[in-house]
Amino acid sequence: MFSPLLAHLDSSLGNLPQGPRNTIADVPGVQVGHVTLAEGAVQTGVTAVTIGEENPFHERIRAAAHVLNGFGKSTGLVQVEELGQLETPLVLTNTLSVGAAHEGVVRYMIERTPEIGREAGTVNPVVFECNDGYLNDIRSLSIKPHHVAEAIEAASSEFDQGAVGAGRGMSAFGLKGGIGSASRQITVGGKLFYVGALVLTNMGRMPDFIMNGLDLGPQLEHALEDETAGPEKGSIIMIVGTNLPLSDRQLKRVAKRTGVALARTGSYFGNGSGDIALAFTTADPILLNSRKRFQTIQQLDEARIDRVFRATVDATEAAILNSMLAAETVVGRTNHVRRGLRNVLEDLSI
Amino acid sequence: MFSPLLAHLDSSLGNLPQGPRNTIADVPGVQVGHVTLAEGAVQTGVTAVTIGEENPFHERIRAAAHVLNGFGKSTGLVQVEELGQLETPLVLTNTLSVGAAHEGVVRYMIERTPEIGREAGTVNPVVFECNDGYLNDIRSLSIKPHHVAEAIEAASSEFDQGAVGAGRGMSAFGLKGGIGSASRQITVGGKLFYVGALVLTNMGRMPDFIMNGLDLGPQLEHALEDETAGPEKGSIIMIVGTNLPLSDRQLKRVAKRTGVALARTGSYFGNGSGDIALAFTTADPILLNSRKRFQTIQQLDEARIDRVFRATVDATEAAILNSMLAAETVVGRTNHVRRGLRNVLEDLSI
Amino acid sequence: MFSPLLAHLDSSLGNLPQGPRNTIADVPGVQVGHVTLAEGAVQTGVTAVTIGEENPFHERIRAAAHVLNGFGKSTGLVQVEELGQLETPLVLTNTLSVGAAHEGVVRYMIERTPEIGREAGTVNPVVFECNDGYLNDIRSLSIKPHHVAEAIEAASSEFDQGAVGAGRGMSAFGLKGGIGSASRQITVGGKLFYVGALVLTNMGRMPDFIMNGLDLGPQLEHALEDETAGPEKGSIIMIVGTNLPLSDRQLKRVAKRTGVALARTGSYFGNGSGDIALAFTTADPILLNSRKRFQTIQQLDEARIDRVFRATVDATEAAILNSMLAAETVVGRTNHVRRGLRNVLEDLSI
Amino acid sequence: MFSPLLAHLDSSLGNLPQGPRNTIADVPGVQVGHVTLAEGAVQTGVTAVTIGEENPFHERIRAAAHVLNGFGKSTGLVQVEELGQLETPLVLTNTLSVGAAHEGVVRYMIERTPEIGREAGTVNPVVFECNDGYLNDIRSLSIKPHHVAEAIEAASSEFDQGAVGAGRGMSAFGLKGGIGSASRQITVGGKLFYVGALVLTNMGRMPDFIMNGLDLGPQLEHALEDETAGPEKGSIIMIVGTNLPLSDRQLKRVAKRTGVALARTGSYFGNGSGDIALAFTTADPILLNSRKRFQTIQQLDEARIDRVFRATVDATEAAILNSMLAAETVVGRTNHVRRGLRNVLEDLSI
Repeated sequence: MFSPLLAHLDSSLGNLPQGPRNTIADVPGVQVGHVTLAEGAVQTGVTAVTIGEENPFHERIRAAAHVLNGFGKSTGLVQVEELGQLETPLVLTNTLSVGAAHEGVVRYMIERTPEIGREAGTVNPVVFECNDGYLNDIRSLSIKPHHVAEAIEAASSEFDQGAVGAGRGMSAFGLKGGIGSASRQITVGGKLFYVGALVLTNMGRMPDFIMNGLDLGPQLEHALEDETAGPEKGSIIMIVGTNLPLSDRQLKRVAKRTGVALARTGSYFGNGSGDIALAFTTADPILLNSRKRFQTIQQLDEARIDRVFRATVDATEAAILNSMLAAETVVGRTNHVRRGLRNVLEDLSI
Repeated sequence: MFSPLLAHLDSSLGNLPQGPRNTIADVPGVQVGHVTLAEGAVQTGVTAVTIGEENPFHERIRAAAHVLNGFGKSTGLVQVEELGQLETPLVLTNTLSVGAAHEGVVRYMIERTPEIGREAGTVNPVVFECNDGYLNDIRSLSIKPHHVAEAIEAASSEFDQGAVGAGRGMSAFGLKGGIGSASRQITVGGKLFYVGALVLTNMGRMPDFIMNGLDLGPQLEHALEDETAGPEKGSIIMIVGTNLPLSDRQLKRVAKRTGVALARTGSYFGNGSGDIALAFTTADPILLNSRKRFQTIQQLDEARIDRVFRATVDATEAAILNSMLAAETVVGRTNHVRRGLRNVLEDLSI
Repeated sequence: MFSPLLAHLDSSLGNLPQGPRNTIADVPGVQVGHVTLAEGAVQTGVTAVTIGEENPFHERIRAAAHVLNGFGKSTGLVQVEELGQLETPLVLTNTLSVGAAHEGVVRYMIERTPEIGREAGTVNPVVFECNDGYLNDIRSLSIKPHHVAEAIEAASSEFDQGAVGAGRGMSAFGLKGGIGSASRQITVGGKLFYVGALVLTNMGRMPDFIMNGLDLGPQLEHALEDETAGPEKGSIIMIVGTNLPLSDRQLKRVAKRTGVALARTGSYFGNGSGDIALAFTTADPILLNSRKRFQTIQQLDEARIDRVFRATVDATEAAILNSMLAAETVVGRTNHVRRGLRNVLEDLSI
Repeated sequence: MFSPLLAHLDSSLGNLPQGPRNTIADVPGVQVGHVTLAEGAVQTGVTAVTIGEENPFHERIRAAAHVLNGFGKSTGLVQVEELGQLETPLVLTNTLSVGAAHEGVVRYMIERTPEIGREAGTVNPVVFECNDGYLNDIRSLSIKPHHVAEAIEAASSEFDQGAVGAGRGMSAFGLKGGIGSASRQITVGGKLFYVGALVLTNMGRMPDFIMNGLDLGPQLEHALEDETAGPEKGSIIMIVGTNLPLSDRQLKRVAKRTGVALARTGSYFGNGSGDIALAFTTADPILLNSRKRFQTIQQLDEARIDRVFRATVDATEAAILNSMLAAETVVGRTNHVRRGLRNVLEDLSI
């Protein structure tokens, strides 16, 4: 049926223009790839975000992370905090498969980088996760190390959203969550820059859901009477990429603003939710084997950073919404169902 | 004129019941006092929050702080982080008067506590601030140390909100901000507990203002055409008190949730805004001269903490709104004006 | 030959008495197990620290971590920071095997805990690592998930130190490092408590080595002329356990004091070293399925905590020394050699 | 009498050369000034560190702080953490005079900077403190705001150490502490850079004192039998300056290494000690009113940072020692005495 709400949905949250793709891939050099496992009780996957053309171990991406709520099992953040850089693609998967994904990143990297574990030290996989155990038989440990290389190799600037990759089994606000993305443009000094967000949504209770400023949750809960809201669990991973020159301190400030977006969708940052953000810039990568004694970094004049915060908040909120709008209904283990938001709105003619 | 919006305003944000006073003073033992200076270009003041009947140096209040955005000059938070406790009343004032307020707390405490600076170590004043320089001639350093003792002595469980005390010269979303408070009740094991918030609001840009879920900012900006929104500056201080037994780690989790409330009022946590939160519990104070080798602390079962998070978010958002609804219009230095939200809504018949 | 230094070595660093075993296993309920792989170029292993008789997922150990230098890849610390508790045994291995060890912990836990990934959320493996790539062919990824269960099952209150388990391939100050342990006793209120340390040493440059206050490094470097000191790399993991009732905030303070011990052995916390500490207490474990709304926690009167800090520093410094004194000489990949400190001192008749 | 120990004292701790002055003033643009109050029971003062020729509000110094133990009352660190910069001189004084010193910094800055509190926001005084209450009648609040301006105006590249300025009433290891300084040189790319330390020492117990690697404490405690070691209290402030280009993240890493120096002098980072470090660089200051949208920052190649860590540790340890060697014996309130280390060694002919 017809959903008047969807028909009028203004996905351009905020005042800043979207990038041409309205995804994190608007940031030049950023690509996303998925491996999706969707058979019966196995509803899970891997999503990889690749940054730059070069081996990231040689040409490191500057980054910072922020933990909004630490009930989560992501790896690699200790070193990001210390060094302010990434040296691998970013990988997302389900919680109990973090070990397999970690090994997958290690295998992928050592195959391409002979000096790892020899003259060059080891490597720091950054693996993010959410618990997709409601739909997915997470105890089956279906993700294997080779899925990581496959997801990385599938990376493209055009990629699917919704119930794909790591998002396959995820839930958001009692509906189907998953992978979402969005972007915003900023002009600084006459030059165009992009701020893109990619999220893995798996948090929230249905009665709390706010869609683009509209308190939709209570209405949905009433209409879908069979749903019972439990405590807020799950988690959300929020990745923000840009090509604006920002220092790692500034990137941490950016990462913190994802919490504004999350709050505006209705989350209270529940106890059981691992709410974790990472921001990176493709500007001024750090060359591992540089002969240079000093690296030159550009950073944005701090007085001009508010626009970046706004772009971050708006792109992240839009990405959360997109993760739900793009998601089809999924039936998983023991016939657990999470319905896609778009289907629900159409069914209810809301 | 009549404001239909105000007539229908449901200040009971969220689903939890308010406490009997709907202020932080619903938490037993918590009182608030103001000293207000309001003459010509001097529009500023001091607000004190007192906790418990005893000298807090002897009977310490367990607490934790969280910095949402650290463009701020509050004092005392280093020790709160290390020891998880308060040993003085909490004091709020304008930014350039932090020194005077700090000395005021020291003088107040050493008069009443002979062992400070002798056998007992020194004392840690926790002084919060926002920059009221738009309305107040902040460079005049009008606050003196004695104002602190006066604010503490004025503390009562009934206290004014709006353009009073430290809130006298503050601005929020381009309108008049100041002191606001609200509370929520929680029942745990058949026993009633309170979560109260007290805020000092001085942040936000008018076009961003969201009132109780309603995007009011753009409408107001259009109607009040003479206003020009500058960058988000100012700051907000958010204090959350409870009598629920929580550990200092849990109190830090509570303090972090104030960010959800702030985000929902329209703030982006702007670069120039010092957004700082502190949460305390009156349960299980720490006795300084206890002969006990081990202290017994109760902490809430973590699986039950979501309700406290909700109470925190709802009370804090309501307190922010109350700070604006309670504030009268103030004319300050060089005829700068900040209008009270209630007046504005009535004038515009919104 | 005879080493006069060893003959007079007073391993009782500091003034506090050692526990009966002088290991972390003096803390009741703590056991340590190893799996050691030592064939040709494969010189690596797994060490597990088990805490308590119960499944730690049901009876959680209170803990806190501190990162001295974050050039490291340990997992699980985000959640320890948020919740202040452990829910698995602690596992140590080489850096590139963190993924396998993580999967090993997951497999071990889900086999014994049917509710994981179902009604009870997932599980947070805490896996520590150092890079043993000098002696070990770390790129071979020799550690497999099953080694974790084997190390846990081998856990005993009597355990080997030196070139065993995760310590098999590690280097310290240009000599052989590995697993070391020590303990100290404290009496509080007439009751005896233990503070035990277990370390995995893999840091430092030979000329910097200070043995028990003696500047031994330069002398050793001169005598062992073939050695060339590179930059400080490697890492050290320092685990401190106690049965004293401490809050998680206090445990974090304890974890920070391991840095004092590390500094006194000659380390400068080098750039490339992942120096990570974790402290736990067996007192007042947190019951997962408690019906209790409030948990009762004992914490030490803060004014009495200095003794715990001293016990921590002395036990940790002694554990570092013990890791080197217990280590035999190991020949690893491409005939790389790390000599045992005891052998060196005897050979040189120092 | 003759002290053989002093005669052979090699103050050149470590392998790096000292700067020409062997103080923090070897860093070009750094100067230090004192105001000393020394009459009867009043034994206290103010020390100021000025950085650069320009008003630091206009030309901001990049910086980072690290709290080793947060039992302290320093101000301004919240903003340093957020923005990575200083905008005032650094000021040190006694704990209960932090308010007066804060007001003193505000007055000094607003007199010279008309836009503060008007179009330019407020100002962030960074005031450090230790408790000199053993020698000084700290309750008399003898420091007044004007002392700050006087200390700043007294700043010179030649300055006294020991019982002067903020160091007048401080104690270290049961002896006289105070202000100490030292420096080291580093060559990078053929260019000479300086790393300087300035400390305010007020920590430690006599039996723990290690002088330049020598366990002197127990011997001193035995010889000076009248001394009774209480718990470790007091505090230490450690300021590290350099002209090497380092990012604020790198400066935080530098600040953390001061803990290595402190540990090597015998401190256990006692419960009651506020042990706080700040590192700054004079390279690439941040211009407040720059029209530039992007700032260009140089940062040291991370693989070369170990030398900076060593210079920091060695300069800081030497500065701590210098604070004691330079200090004369002081008799303060109620005839409390702290003896100068040099006098003690000579008296005892150690």
